[in-house]
Amino acid sequence: MAHILEKKVYYHDTDCGGVVYYANYLKYFEEGRTEYLTELGVDLKTLSSQGTWFVVKRVEIDYKGPARYADILEVVTEVTKIRNVSIEFQQRILRNTRSEQSGNATALVEAKTTLVCIDASFRPAAIDDAILKRIRI
Amino acid sequence: MAHILEKKVYYHDTDCGGVVYYANYLKYFEEGRTEYLTELGVDLKTLSSQGTWFVVKRVEIDYKGPARYADILEVVTEVTKIRNVSIEFQQRILRNTRSEQSGNATALVEAKTTLVCIDASFRPAAIDDAILKRIRI
Amino acid sequence: MAHILEKKVYYHDTDCGGVVYYANYLKYFEEGRTEYLTELGVDLKTLSSQGTWFVVKRVEIDYKGPARYADILEVVTEVTKIRNVSIEFQQRILRNTRSEQSGNATALVEAKTTLVCIDASFRPAAIDDAILKRIRI
Amino acid sequence: MAHILEKKVYYHDTDCGGVVYYANYLKYFEEGRTEYLTELGVDLKTLSSQGTWFVVKRVEIDYKGPARYADILEVVTEVTKIRNVSIEFQQRILRNTRSEQSGNATALVEAKTTLVCIDASFRPAAIDDAILKRIRI
Repeated sequence: MAHILEKKVYYHDTDCGGVVYYANYLKYFEEGRTEYLTELGVDLKTLSSQGTWFVVKRVEIDYKGPARYADILEVVTEVTKIRNVSIEFQQRILRNTRSEQSGNATALVEAKTTLVCIDASFRPAAIDDAILKRIRI
Repeated sequence: MAHILEKKVYYHDTDCGGVVYYANYLKYFEEGRTEYLTELGVDLKTLSSQGTWFVVKRVEIDYKGPARYADILEVVTEVTKIRNVSIEFQQRILRNTRSEQSGNATALVEAKTTLVCIDASFRPAAIDDAILKRIRI
Repeated sequence: MAHILEKKVYYHDTDCGGVVYYANYLKYFEEGRTEYLTELGVDLKTLSSQGTWFVVKRVEIDYKGPARYADILEVVTEVTKIRNVSIEFQQRILRNTRSEQSGNATALVEAKTTLVCIDASFRPAAIDDAILKRIRI
Repeated sequence: MAHILEKKVYYHDTDCGGVVYYANYLKYFEEGRTEYLTELGVDLKTLSSQGTWFVVKRVEIDYKGPARYADILEVVTEVTKIRNVSIEFQQRILRNTRSEQSGNATALVEAKTTLVCIDASFRPAAIDDAILKRIRI
């Protein structure tokens, strides 16, 4: 059950090589994960006010083709693993073109991101059952 | 008594127009003001731990010429006004070229920035005398 | 005839003061201007491929209140002046709350931005009539 | 032969979690690689004017501890592999503390980054011998 977020590329996303700057895809991926969780009813703001945060522990990201100014992109987000204190996301960036279905589109960027649940002291903490149930659905 | 901070332009500072993105000069100016204050012995981190912050209230910024990838820039910072709860900075960006003295160089960007001293509730607060004395020197 | 763009605040927009970083509102304003022009049929990407760019010449920005993580904001964009080679935009950021109409909401940030039309040599160029007609509508 | 770049953390590097935003370390790593190559006499700006670019193909990044506002960091950069069309960098971020030698400091962030040499059409291109000789030294 993949979540899709549409993103348009603006000047502030690009660099003087004429393409989206490599670090900025991590911003797109943050937005994709947040919207995916929001849709499942997991509200990161409320969680942080209760002393629970999800922080990024590891990212593996492959750049396969450049996105450019004014492109309409799709940020596709899926959860691939859930453990006691961590969640693993698989995400990819597709260029949204009218002439092809996004299911067949070649990914421009692919990333595997591991988030760890932490408490206010930055120590790993078990993910709450209420959250786990929502993500597993 | 102007403070000068040297900054090199990297890919992450630029956009696909081939020049430094207009919002990113505000990051350079933050760095310039912070280093100016640090040199005078005003430590923003310590102040924030004591419940005092300086936040930007207003910026007027004029873009006169583009800075480009790999340019070595000078961020020139001066205080032009000090009031009970606010400080006004005049800042400019010069391209650091060997063949000209920076005093004569044409500014690429000029900005006037007003900072307001606030407390933890985001309310204006009188700037501490110890800070005023350092800035006036 | 104001254009309204909805923007959600993510972690990458904020700083450790707990609010949106002051330079990042200029990214929101870029997006607002671009969507406003797109809606009027002015396509900045096509124009740049024809040797015409709009670059920011001056910004006056007033910060009146902080936006925070997970806020839903409205970026309101209007054109207030059109000259031979330049366009002046008035823009503001409102917090989108259910209980109030955005018309009455207090702006968190207000900005007046002047864009200049330039050619490939960064020289001012008269704005094409076809563009002027669309913006004047 | 590791290259060390000192970086201070400013507000624009952080997020409302109180720490450096996870994508911003990739900016630090860009700066580290650029300064490493510059020191070896490999000038990325000149190369791009000759139709040669190095683009990031893959990043593996592990976040082990947070960097915070006003921290003085060290970006440590080494080349670990050179192939016909690609270079692999190993980089890490250390907190620069007076009381410990950076050789012993625990890395806050570690990354392995693969750069690919491309031509103007974004096709892989053999890395020039003159560059290889400099990097191998």
